[in-house]
Amino acid sequence: MACPPCGSLLDYKTAKFSVTRNRRVGLLHRLLQLSTPRGGRSLLGWVLLLQKGYQERDAAPHVAVVTKVKGAAAAEAAGRRLWDAADLTWPPQGENVLFLVTHFTATIQQAQGTCPESPSVLDGMCTEDADCPMGNPVVHGIKTGKCLMFNATHSTCEIYGWCPVENDTLARKPLLAEAEHFTIFIKNTVHFTKFNFSRCNTLQTTDPSYFKSCTYDPVFNPSCPVFRVRDMVEAAGKSFGDLALLGGSIRILIEWNCDLDHPATQCQPQYSFRLQDTMYNFRTASYYWGSQRQLYRNLLKLYGIHFDISVHGQAGKFSIVPTAVSFGTSIAFFGAATMVCDLVLLYLDAKADLYWKEKFEEPEATT
Amino acid sequence: MACPPCGSLLDYKTAKFSVTRNRRVGLLHRLLQLSTPRGGRSLLGWVLLLQKGYQERDAAPHVAVVTKVKGAAAAEAAGRRLWDAADLTWPPQGENVLFLVTHFTATIQQAQGTCPESPSVLDGMCTEDADCPMGNPVVHGIKTGKCLMFNATHSTCEIYGWCPVENDTLARKPLLAEAEHFTIFIKNTVHFTKFNFSRCNTLQTTDPSYFKSCTYDPVFNPSCPVFRVRDMVEAAGKSFGDLALLGGSIRILIEWNCDLDHPATQCQPQYSFRLQDTMYNFRTASYYWGSQRQLYRNLLKLYGIHFDISVHGQAGKFSIVPTAVSFGTSIAFFGAATMVCDLVLLYLDAKADLYWKEKFEEPEATT
Amino acid sequence: MACPPCGSLLDYKTAKFSVTRNRRVGLLHRLLQLSTPRGGRSLLGWVLLLQKGYQERDAAPHVAVVTKVKGAAAAEAAGRRLWDAADLTWPPQGENVLFLVTHFTATIQQAQGTCPESPSVLDGMCTEDADCPMGNPVVHGIKTGKCLMFNATHSTCEIYGWCPVENDTLARKPLLAEAEHFTIFIKNTVHFTKFNFSRCNTLQTTDPSYFKSCTYDPVFNPSCPVFRVRDMVEAAGKSFGDLALLGGSIRILIEWNCDLDHPATQCQPQYSFRLQDTMYNFRTASYYWGSQRQLYRNLLKLYGIHFDISVHGQAGKFSIVPTAVSFGTSIAFFGAATMVCDLVLLYLDAKADLYWKEKFEEPEATT
Repeated sequence: MACPPCGSLLDYKTAKFSVTRNRRVGLLHRLLQLSTPRGGRSLLGWVLLLQKGYQERDAAPHVAVVTKVKGAAAAEAAGRRLWDAADLTWPPQGENVLFLVTHFTATIQQAQGTCPESPSVLDGMCTEDADCPMGNPVVHGIKTGKCLMFNATHSTCEIYGWCPVENDTLARKPLLAEAEHFTIFIKNTVHFTKFNFSRCNTLQTTDPSYFKSCTYDPVFNPSCPVFRVRDMVEAAGKSFGDLALLGGSIRILIEWNCDLDHPATQCQPQYSFRLQDTMYNFRTASYYWGSQRQLYRNLLKLYGIHFDISVHGQAGKFSIVPTAVSFGTSIAFFGAATMVCDLVLLYLDAKADLYWKEKFEEPEATT
Repeated sequence: MACPPCGSLLDYKTAKFSVTRNRRVGLLHRLLQLSTPRGGRSLLGWVLLLQKGYQERDAAPHVAVVTKVKGAAAAEAAGRRLWDAADLTWPPQGENVLFLVTHFTATIQQAQGTCPESPSVLDGMCTEDADCPMGNPVVHGIKTGKCLMFNATHSTCEIYGWCPVENDTLARKPLLAEAEHFTIFIKNTVHFTKFNFSRCNTLQTTDPSYFKSCTYDPVFNPSCPVFRVRDMVEAAGKSFGDLALLGGSIRILIEWNCDLDHPATQCQPQYSFRLQDTMYNFRTASYYWGSQRQLYRNLLKLYGIHFDISVHGQAGKFSIVPTAVSFGTSIAFFGAATMVCDLVLLYLDAKADLYWKEKFEEPEATT
Repeated sequence: MACPPCGSLLDYKTAKFSVTRNRRVGLLHRLLQLSTPRGGRSLLGWVLLLQKGYQERDAAPHVAVVTKVKGAAAAEAAGRRLWDAADLTWPPQGENVLFLVTHFTATIQQAQGTCPESPSVLDGMCTEDADCPMGNPVVHGIKTGKCLMFNATHSTCEIYGWCPVENDTLARKPLLAEAEHFTIFIKNTVHFTKFNFSRCNTLQTTDPSYFKSCTYDPVFNPSCPVFRVRDMVEAAGKSFGDLALLGGSIRILIEWNCDLDHPATQCQPQYSFRLQDTMYNFRTASYYWGSQRQLYRNLLKLYGIHFDISVHGQAGKFSIVPTAVSFGTSIAFFGAATMVCDLVLLYLDAKADLYWKEKFEEPEATT
């Protein structure tokens, strides 16, 4: 019995506590346990039920997105009167990024040669030839050394480059304003590898024509994955007309929050829309050979709405490991309250001396 | 000696425990310690050796992927008899997403004008002019107000749009079935910033022609980064013929699991393939001007296999900090077992009264 | 008083400790507390102030990147003498990935027919017709069964494919070496959803022309988001001339580290540049119909610099929850030091027997 190392493995050793009928410290202790955010939380009910501390989680699903744009818009511009989805979207391959043209400026039949620089380029302005040192690059080409009249009011340096220079006066009204009626079909699959569980946002119906005719509405049609462009722009807090003129960028957020302890049909995505930027344009050129074996290009500056689909998801499922962890963590946090009370009792209380002796018992062996 | 706050800093204070020769509770305590998943894990050997709790980890490497497609397929279609990789892949710039055409429908020489809508469009069907209100948009254009005979059996609304409307009858056999023999070379670099450690999946050989001639095989050639399209489709659980007709989407997973306490050559990627979707197509148009200054377009609806390369990686290396954390966490979890046993001892045991008095000692000062 | 379960809720129970005047163990205990990495850290000052343990963190911001390339380069090649940004960058839509052409080989006016395979293709070499089994695919087409003279020194198999085969001799000097003077404007927005806080790297000025004229410099101009291509290549540790010839891949890292307890203007991005790869090229083809209704294509093999913009960010803000967690964790880790000292005291010390009795008190009830 006296041999310490060989004490029976089945003896149960429980920590000795010293009971203090000190109501002030006792009250402080209970208050701290309940009031500290973690202390309050650590009540088992909270951690285990509300926070789903009993679930194993997977917050990094594999995500696949396919999009398809549908619609047709009438606009008299650039040799055509009608534009359909294949004319107005880019890239053709619908992925998680998508651009829909709403407005553009076209500079057709540019060829390489010399012409005056645009007056909108600051360092292309001149009053005499000396302002245009030969060989210096500007935005649209390389200066030839001459200063030319661009129009009645402006003189600009002559450049060698694609001529005529890009026309950058923008029509006051978006040329393709009807793009607001276009719809975007978004097919989104998430796969949670930890649980080998997949869901798709298009599986909730048995009627094959449903996705051909429905339109998403947050209240009446929250599970239809066909979105009207105008609705999305408005959900992001802008009017389509404003955004169409200079372009813009909108994030489509898809959030999956799946509790796999419930039936899979309850795991539905939530859609939201956020304006990211109020200017969006880029240039693209197409090249062709003219009759005299000369290379020409058509330069388009495209304004439009850039959609960027971002998918987040998490899934949880009951598991014994996180349950034990939540339980253990809860207990650990009560320790903080105990430490504060000990400090009060041992250093601040009137009878600190007595409590000190009680708590820290000195065996005779060491005195 | 009696002055509590100035107790020597070098006194060692150890918690007092009350030993209980209660075999039932003692056994319960040991069982709980060993049986709770975390309790079982917390045996140092488990945490430190099997779980590599002694390693610092980096699970978010910087990833770079470059792909190149090789192959040639013979098919009599759209003015050519032979298709090579530059004809069949999109986008040209090989990145972590890649599309290989296996089938298509072409609608050539479309011009803007009027023609009957396709009978496959539901709201383009009509029996009289009144069914086609002028100005209403349908899929391929805008209704002109007339109802026309499309063919012997169907009448459809006349539309203004790109005419003739898209031909959507699909050949029964994939036009580019030989794409199954194409190969994809995937060059993948991972960089773990925390350890400043980089690895590439193409570095394991000194023979420069190896990557020009080898083909990946999970058993015989697991480190060759050249993948045959057919092999990938089959590893994803489909036959190439099925997928080629309507297209599909396949995820190529590359997983790096590097233990930097071992030689770097042991850090090799694992490849796996997963079918994501069994339908994949998109439309793309190319424009040209005809002899009478009229704009034409060729519209292609491309079906094919979309590859999506997803790289995951983690690296671990011995470090004293996570070792200490693992050690500390293990100890903390024993606390949960103790709490359960205390509850049994103090509330359920026959001699609870005695245990209570022993555990919670009341000093005379507070009685 | 004696009824255990109904002990007053306001009694304060504090663990009983046994004080040991054992200087060796006491010293060991203090040393362990201070020296173990976590023990040292757990000093409140360290955890709470240096590690910002009192802050709630968001390390996964929503990121948006828009890029625009500016510049013009003179080079006599492929029918033009001047190249501007629209000619040299791909894809047109500036996103987080961007390619700038610096060099290329062009194979113009390819048509489908028969011609000898390139001598650079290993399995296209032959000495007699038998080396070229009809129907076998090689890199550029399908063998017809004949062996032809390619030039004075080499014989290669005749193939059916796009003819003539690609010209793969590369000029010794990059054709578009002036691309080094091009600039890339990078607009980057980060949004921390947890704090509903957004920042953009272009907002720090009131002068609208600043971004049109400035150039990034790590010392003199660290907040200008306009980067010269040459500067970026050099910051990544390469000379532009080397990279331009065979292409390369550079990662642009943007790091945001925002302390929201300070003014928002202090939250500025850090830019860094890393070389990822020293070879980068891809092929792209454009198709056109010749005068005799024959399809032709121009095949370009483009070499250049691939930029890949990667944004990382984290934001922190004071919150009571992580403060409590840091506090609690710190306390827990002192437990590890105590356990080691207990082992020394109870198993290794000369007076272990006495300490054992002191620590583990056996009530009479159980003896």
